[in-house]
Amino acid sequence: MVITIREGSDIPIYQQIRDQIVRGISDGRLKAGEQLPTVRGLAEEMGVNSMTVNRAYQLLKQQGYIIADRRSGARVSRSFAESSQLSGESRELLCRIIAEAKVGGMSQDAFLEECRRCYENGEV
Amino acid sequence: MVITIREGSDIPIYQQIRDQIVRGISDGRLKAGEQLPTVRGLAEEMGVNSMTVNRAYQLLKQQGYIIADRRSGARVSRSFAESSQLSGESRELLCRIIAEAKVGGMSQDAFLEECRRCYENGEV
Repeated sequence: MVITIREGSDIPIYQQIRDQIVRGISDGRLKAGEQLPTVRGLAEEMGVNSMTVNRAYQLLKQQGYIIADRRSGARVSRSFAESSQLSGESRELLCRIIAEAKVGGMSQDAFLEECRRCYENGEV
Repeated sequence: MVITIREGSDIPIYQQIRDQIVRGISDGRLKAGEQLPTVRGLAEEMGVNSMTVNRAYQLLKQQGYIIADRRSGARVSRSFAESSQLSGESRELLCRIIAEAKVGGMSQDAFLEECRRCYENGEV
């Protein structure tokens, strides 16, 4: 799986790495139990600091997306907390995005269409 | 308009204030040209530091939601950049939320229903 970083983004690099790995899990490019690159390996490949990759992995581990230990490295979790509801933070963010879209004059249908495209393709 | 802050949230307080003002504009509780409280007044009313409110106002000004000067204070902008598209950052965030919802097993219909509710009521 290729991880791409947008240098000019407001989103910090560790968060972008974390987000792309979650996206990879969600669209099936990363399978349950699959081995992830080592922190050092991924950092070298991407040309970023090891600390940045480490922070992304720590976050993924804390949020239950990966399991990691020193001996066997990092792997995608075999089971995720099933939830038919959004987390509190996701709801807040979603409402923020929708409020901005409304102020900009975007219709409900146009917004839902973007969501549909993102749900199906992993991107808008 | 009442601004409520969630103390335990991962979202910083200045961002919560900024988000709620944008939400107020989007659902019509704040009208174009309407005067906003002074930084000091709002800070006192909310029991937060003036710097926090100031940071929220600076962000809103920078993003074009309010106009502010020393003499007349802060007002809601009279015109917003119309846009039928989401900003790059909003798209990134939206895709992050959707990826998390998919990993958690939330169906596309359930997700779109949350969006519909939020678009219509300003909250989910």
